[in-house]
Amino acid sequence: MASHEGKPIRVALLGCGTVGTEVVRLLTDQAADLTARVGAPVQVAGIAVRRPNKHREVPAELLTTDAEALVASDDVDVIVEVIGGIEPARTLLLSALRAGKSVVTANKALLAEHSAELFEASDASGADLYFEAAVAGAIPLLRPLRESLAGDRITRVMGIVNGTTNFILSGMDSTGASYAETLEEATRLGYAEADPTADVDGFDAASKAAILASLAFHSRVTAADVHREGIASVSAADIAAAKALGRTVKLLAICERVPIGGADDQTTADDGEGISVRVHPAMIPTSHPLASVHGAFNAVFVEADAAGEMMFYGQGAGGAPTASAVLGDLVAVARNRVHRGRGPRESAYAALPVRPMGQTPTRYHISLDVADRAGVLSQVAAVFAEHDVSIAAVRQEGRVDDASLVIVTHAATDAALRSTVDKIGGLPVVREVVSVMRVEGEEI
Amino acid sequence: MASHEGKPIRVALLGCGTVGTEVVRLLTDQAADLTARVGAPVQVAGIAVRRPNKHREVPAELLTTDAEALVASDDVDVIVEVIGGIEPARTLLLSALRAGKSVVTANKALLAEHSAELFEASDASGADLYFEAAVAGAIPLLRPLRESLAGDRITRVMGIVNGTTNFILSGMDSTGASYAETLEEATRLGYAEADPTADVDGFDAASKAAILASLAFHSRVTAADVHREGIASVSAADIAAAKALGRTVKLLAICERVPIGGADDQTTADDGEGISVRVHPAMIPTSHPLASVHGAFNAVFVEADAAGEMMFYGQGAGGAPTASAVLGDLVAVARNRVHRGRGPRESAYAALPVRPMGQTPTRYHISLDVADRAGVLSQVAAVFAEHDVSIAAVRQEGRVDDASLVIVTHAATDAALRSTVDKIGGLPVVREVVSVMRVEGEEI
Repeated sequence: MASHEGKPIRVALLGCGTVGTEVVRLLTDQAADLTARVGAPVQVAGIAVRRPNKHREVPAELLTTDAEALVASDDVDVIVEVIGGIEPARTLLLSALRAGKSVVTANKALLAEHSAELFEASDASGADLYFEAAVAGAIPLLRPLRESLAGDRITRVMGIVNGTTNFILSGMDSTGASYAETLEEATRLGYAEADPTADVDGFDAASKAAILASLAFHSRVTAADVHREGIASVSAADIAAAKALGRTVKLLAICERVPIGGADDQTTADDGEGISVRVHPAMIPTSHPLASVHGAFNAVFVEADAAGEMMFYGQGAGGAPTASAVLGDLVAVARNRVHRGRGPRESAYAALPVRPMGQTPTRYHISLDVADRAGVLSQVAAVFAEHDVSIAAVRQEGRVDDASLVIVTHAATDAALRSTVDKIGGLPVVREVVSVMRVEGEEI
Repeated sequence: MASHEGKPIRVALLGCGTVGTEVVRLLTDQAADLTARVGAPVQVAGIAVRRPNKHREVPAELLTTDAEALVASDDVDVIVEVIGGIEPARTLLLSALRAGKSVVTANKALLAEHSAELFEASDASGADLYFEAAVAGAIPLLRPLRESLAGDRITRVMGIVNGTTNFILSGMDSTGASYAETLEEATRLGYAEADPTADVDGFDAASKAAILASLAFHSRVTAADVHREGIASVSAADIAAAKALGRTVKLLAICERVPIGGADDQTTADDGEGISVRVHPAMIPTSHPLASVHGAFNAVFVEADAAGEMMFYGQGAGGAPTASAVLGDLVAVARNRVHRGRGPRESAYAALPVRPMGQTPTRYHISLDVADRAGVLSQVAAVFAEHDVSIAAVRQEGRVDDASLVIVTHAATDAALRSTVDKIGGLPVVREVVSVMRVEGEEI
């Protein structure tokens, strides 16, 4: 077996923020270890930045503003991209892959939109494309999905993959404060960005869900395929309603196999399987392992036919954790160059269709303020029956003038559940729909 | 890049018990998926068993009693070994690797004793050696350690890696029953084998600890290097003492970096780092994530400099979970054959010395029955001071004739702690040493 043992692996770094700086620091501090693990020294050939005069803890002589020239340089074997966003990252990485240079990226947005194109370029030249840091920071998650579970049939991936929203929901749960107040606090403490849209509206989690679904189900899934609901509409009443039921509210990224077919199906496929890929707040039991994941930590549950249930837990963001994931990939692609190996390719052979949210089976929790008189429950129950939605549990509590009615359903299509809620909201006996939230995560 | 795409990968299975049968079933049921994922069909060429007439759910025409001939066959590319034990597995796998055949094994005992020899054979021919199923069943753990964290510096691996002992300790904790009673129950329910020695005396966990330490610290560690204490001496009093402190008792496999040097050091190394690799029961806080791991489930905590804390959780044993891990490895080695890739090699460059248990820093919980009179605490405290062991917490409770004294120490060498306990046990004012147990896992 031919080997390049000894010849240095030259790395171009694109971007030098928190993660990039940490990558350079680790490459320097652990140089001897990395050389031993790779079989050759791993050296920084250059660092492309937009503002070279900004203060950074990296050697100034490595900085350049000409990212294109750096990527094209004959002196570069591997590209590490930590710029983020679609352009210029996309163009730079396509050039690199087409030129046979290995790519390590932490760019979830890019992967969630353009992975097909990137993998095609990777396949054409045989260059590696690794992106462990794009999802769940330091937690080894993509490599287990792509490789460790490659002989199994994954049925479900469900996780907390965004630290900002988890921090806010944890805060609302412990203080009883409103979403707006808690977001303000999170911003003040640096847990939310000045413009929190990408996090609180679920865009960040949706990109990660698309990547997870692609790998888990061997199908191309982009961010646009992901049903996305953020946490801005989660109210203190929702949190209180969850608490009353021994549940807590989390923003979940859920990727699961769902059957195609049946009365509600509007797709053209006759039978076979589809997948549901979605991001939305949901109530989970406080006894569920995901319920005790607080603050910036991420955790992902994976279910597979033979392996059963697994959980992966760790730091989902931050310079050092993300850099750890980047370095792990960098060692892998560098080893592959030294030993003429090749990492896993795109695996999209299954091409499972993404099922619309309306056709996805979910369960709802509904909390109502109703008039306290005979027949209310029968009127409400009739609406459920009309929509073929089966009720799992009901709790009715009388008060002075009115009563509260809490209903948890069995699984039904999301469309049927939405119609049921709409119609119930219009019943004269229903004074207010206090809280409506999906329910996930049976107790294990 | 040359490719063998299309040519079938032929697999020889050594052993056909629960795991082997499940491997054959998955290879058959998922044939189309595996072909797509590997880039070539994966076929069973033969199955070596000792008793071919035993009833099995596999095609009888594949069975043979001649394992050597099967391994040597030109019709075989990959060997999957699920026999267990040292011989004949060792000789068969060495022959296979020397002949350039990839090996996937679930054999922890073999890996924990002979991995150096196996890796040498693997390196000489360039054949892959994978063994994810050897530790923690279905949980992707070895691949994350070997690959995902290859760019980081792992400082600690601590986990529950044996389901039988975990089942027994969970049972003692929930019922208050003795070890003997609970072992009997576990045997009756099939959670413990007729001869439970390998599990309850910690041999199984020690093999796994050796494998984990080797990978985490890039050093050769064998089962003989592992300090091993089983659970047979864990008493109902130990469990009760743990409960009184908000703790629970678990059998832990612990691999950690420890400083070398200092007054207690008896090694010849002047400075630098060593590792501690050990298996013993320990009290952990009930709030620690490992505390809520029950029954046959396994969970492993990993700490690394950049990545921080991570946890991996899932099913640690059983036919299907173990087969899932074997299949994941099988897909990897088959892909490598199709695409002329190469899996990770042995990484033992760091060669860190394993430090004896006596020199390992640990913390103790000690529960004593003492005479209820003035001066007892000062006599006991004097013994701690004499051994340079610092006390973290003390609780004294008077009763009619005597008193109980509970002490939790700060970290000290295990030898100093043992000497302290021995001397305290001999004090006339100490009526009984009720419970002595190590303490691990600060609250996180």
